[in-house]
Amino acid sequence: MAKQNIFDNDTFFEGYQALREKEVNANNLFELPTLNALMPDLTGKRILDLGCGSGERCADYLKRGAVSVVGIDISEKMLEVAKRENADPAITYLHMAMEDIASLEGPFDVAISSLALHYVEDFAGVIEKVHDLLSEGGIFLFSQEHPFSTCYTGKGERWTRDENGKKIHLNLADYCIEGKRETTWFVDGVQRYHRTFSTTVNTLAKAGFQILQMEEPYASPEILEKYPEYYDLFHKPDFLFVKAKKTSLY
Amino acid sequence: MAKQNIFDNDTFFEGYQALREKEVNANNLFELPTLNALMPDLTGKRILDLGCGSGERCADYLKRGAVSVVGIDISEKMLEVAKRENADPAITYLHMAMEDIASLEGPFDVAISSLALHYVEDFAGVIEKVHDLLSEGGIFLFSQEHPFSTCYTGKGERWTRDENGKKIHLNLADYCIEGKRETTWFVDGVQRYHRTFSTTVNTLAKAGFQILQMEEPYASPEILEKYPEYYDLFHKPDFLFVKAKKTSLY
Repeated sequence: MAKQNIFDNDTFFEGYQALREKEVNANNLFELPTLNALMPDLTGKRILDLGCGSGERCADYLKRGAVSVVGIDISEKMLEVAKRENADPAITYLHMAMEDIASLEGPFDVAISSLALHYVEDFAGVIEKVHDLLSEGGIFLFSQEHPFSTCYTGKGERWTRDENGKKIHLNLADYCIEGKRETTWFVDGVQRYHRTFSTTVNTLAKAGFQILQMEEPYASPEILEKYPEYYDLFHKPDFLFVKAKKTSLY
Repeated sequence: MAKQNIFDNDTFFEGYQALREKEVNANNLFELPTLNALMPDLTGKRILDLGCGSGERCADYLKRGAVSVVGIDISEKMLEVAKRENADPAITYLHMAMEDIASLEGPFDVAISSLALHYVEDFAGVIEKVHDLLSEGGIFLFSQEHPFSTCYTGKGERWTRDENGKKIHLNLADYCIEGKRETTWFVDGVQRYHRTFSTTVNTLAKAGFQILQMEEPYASPEILEKYPEYYDLFHKPDFLFVKAKKTSLY
């Protein structure tokens, strides 16, 4: 199946870097705080970071007490940043697609993936490989784009707005039609893979994961007061988080 | 918390009975086949049916090999039908709200609930009580209205249609705002309780259930050919199913 490396496209890479450098964005308001709230105790743990990008989080996992971190990414450009800005003897950065992790030497105690799995076509294959690489009772924590986002085919407007431009409701269609979606995000032809909630849950359960927690973060009253534009998350959360535990008892 | 007994309203009861008696409806095309596909082996099992209604399914569980069935329902009218049409020495019908099942004498091996839990305000309380009543490794299988349905507040149109009346997309809003929704279904003021996917999953996980499978059924090509009006399920599944196993290991 296809392995997408959109992050090595110059235009995409620059657009993405600029977005991430904005002081306030959905990542630092919602994604990172939720991931951190779900983070297990990493003391003494061996971590696998799937889609580590520029490595900030790998460095953070060490600060949280991890003994070693392996960060993999399909993008050489992102890994160059990681090796320059977030190098540490306890971190190993590898140029590798998530689909190829079977070649890694495990086990790991915790696997983490932030906003990368919606780029993966072979979701079931990756989930099985993560399960294989984890120690018994090991934790898999990931975020991905929310199914309300990934289902969008690009046909028609994503939102219906009132006369002042305020979003009234999401135009939700094709939720049950899974698979590839090509959208424009900095560049044309960015490929995401849509999966329903039930497919996400069933794929994990079938691979032998027990689901501990899921989250679909939206704006707290405090965030809403400062950044009222995020009222739209009440209609459509941007991210879906899953925390699951490897079990061989199922 | 409120316990709703809408089925004892005469107008609602008659409207609901008429709907169920239609030869082709969403229940016999999608709900019942999916529930049956998820059904565990009932041979020798003690069954609890939460919201048993007129008891057809209690009778079916016996045919599947169950040794005993306790069917509870808040509606006396529904139970009258059950006792008249689906009586059996191995079935006990009890007039009881789901919220009050702690008074039942367990354990049960399998708890099943078909399209009733979206009427329940205290979801967490019911889930905990079901967990208490199940034997170790016991199965809890339920269907409920899909969150894309329960989130609808009654403001605005539910669907956007093209000039021929065909549904183009669901107008999805307020998904992250959980709680009571009052809608009109045969009568005004029918109360449903909206919960997100993540709340549903987290409530089960917290109570000690391992989620085995979830389903959001939509129309197969065969059904679509006969009943093309069900194309709308690609946009909005009507039902959400959960199959979970009691575990004390979590």
